[in-house]
Amino acid sequence: MADDDRLAQLEKRIAALEDQIAIYQLLMTYGPAADSGSDDVVRAIHHPDAEYDSGLEVFRGSDGIADMIASLPLHREIMAGGSAHMATMPVVQVSGDHATALCHGQLLRFDEEADAFRVWRTTAVRLEFRRTSDGWKIFRRVNRLLDGSDASHQHFRDGLRAVGAVPAEASAPSGTGPR
Amino acid sequence: MADDDRLAQLEKRIAALEDQIAIYQLLMTYGPAADSGSDDVVRAIHHPDAEYDSGLEVFRGSDGIADMIASLPLHREIMAGGSAHMATMPVVQVSGDHATALCHGQLLRFDEEADAFRVWRTTAVRLEFRRTSDGWKIFRRVNRLLDGSDASHQHFRDGLRAVGAVPAEASAPSGTGPR
Amino acid sequence: MADDDRLAQLEKRIAALEDQIAIYQLLMTYGPAADSGSDDVVRAIHHPDAEYDSGLEVFRGSDGIADMIASLPLHREIMAGGSAHMATMPVVQVSGDHATALCHGQLLRFDEEADAFRVWRTTAVRLEFRRTSDGWKIFRRVNRLLDGSDASHQHFRDGLRAVGAVPAEASAPSGTGPR
Repeated sequence: MADDDRLAQLEKRIAALEDQIAIYQLLMTYGPAADSGSDDVVRAIHHPDAEYDSGLEVFRGSDGIADMIASLPLHREIMAGGSAHMATMPVVQVSGDHATALCHGQLLRFDEEADAFRVWRTTAVRLEFRRTSDGWKIFRRVNRLLDGSDASHQHFRDGLRAVGAVPAEASAPSGTGPR
Repeated sequence: MADDDRLAQLEKRIAALEDQIAIYQLLMTYGPAADSGSDDVVRAIHHPDAEYDSGLEVFRGSDGIADMIASLPLHREIMAGGSAHMATMPVVQVSGDHATALCHGQLLRFDEEADAFRVWRTTAVRLEFRRTSDGWKIFRRVNRLLDGSDASHQHFRDGLRAVGAVPAEASAPSGTGPR
Repeated sequence: MADDDRLAQLEKRIAALEDQIAIYQLLMTYGPAADSGSDDVVRAIHHPDAEYDSGLEVFRGSDGIADMIASLPLHREIMAGGSAHMATMPVVQVSGDHATALCHGQLLRFDEEADAFRVWRTTAVRLEFRRTSDGWKIFRRVNRLLDGSDASHQHFRDGLRAVGAVPAEASAPSGTGPR
């Protein structure tokens, strides 16, 4: 029946949009949770088997990542001085119950004397998400400092490929170092 | 009738996505309007009874907020020197004709000598929106400087609760000061 | 037939949401591509007749813009030192096969000695998009440094008008310089 097909098609397209928005919400929840020491929220948005590679250290499991927020001395020190864990709007690719995304991450720290915030870290961020019975969860996040290294360039390059942004016929881009 | 139910369900889901996007647009309109002194735009995106607590001062009513853009000496000075009122993509929760959101806000100022922009303020931002006969409007915005204070942490914490990000069974997060 | 009308209406609304998301994805792909020297991706997201006015120089055609990424000495130097080409979530207005958007753009550069990133440029960004047989493409991007100049204010003001944010009855905003 034609109407049935159209309805099924619409339901599929709406579900795709809902997934996109759900992933936006998930990613953007992290920063306020990290800045406020909300380890319960950080636990809730991560998959039990999640991995977070901050570029400085790797944290494993939603419990391990929540523990970092709750008690890692460096995180507590950053929070106490005034921090902003920020991210740009991500590029997202959903494929069934998996999704991948990339964006920029930032960690700013308050400098009272300078009456300003120092942009301490700016990173290339790649993420993976999994759909669970409890909704989408962050499954993997890997940050790489944008220090000009080949590794940081390759990180974004791999992310662009993962979200389907690299044209099929693409050869290696010119001059981005060894690959 | 089954099709009718499916249609009604789809209409509801699409309306929810449209609300989400409408709130994105409303929030992201503020920065370019503030930076360009477009007090008419600032008036149009706020509810007549809106309140804007910048963390430095409280402005009341869409007229009061528009007047701030048009003639507050500090705002005019910031604009004249070169400003960027920026926000991260918000986390949004819509509930009928009300919505709440949280994000990071930033105010950057051009420093010609340094050939750079100074990140003067970075804030925890909580927002409330109301649906009116003229579409969604900003009803309340409260910024708190991310200076490491308990008040700033609590502001984001309260925002996370308002958008439904805090798990139901949550007890207080560890070590974020008194609550 | 009533159901047919409802279905047609829903299809139209979903298509509008899909356009909005497609434009988000397109814009947010640029930064990671620019930072990683992915000239193939930069070529793919631009219309063959695109124009990119960075505020420092104008680049023409998707080939010209891709060449800038691949071989412009200033771009290669910025990349080699560590760069973040960032953008805020845009305000978007779609009208048939054309779309317009505005947002803030940023170019941050790594400063190893300072252990921080310098916000070198923050710009008012206006964009135009065209729908092609190969999907939406960036057709025009114009950045203006937010240095307090009337030109930069006017750039955002014009963008607000282009996305439909300026109220119909609007007169010129107060005190934003000559218009």
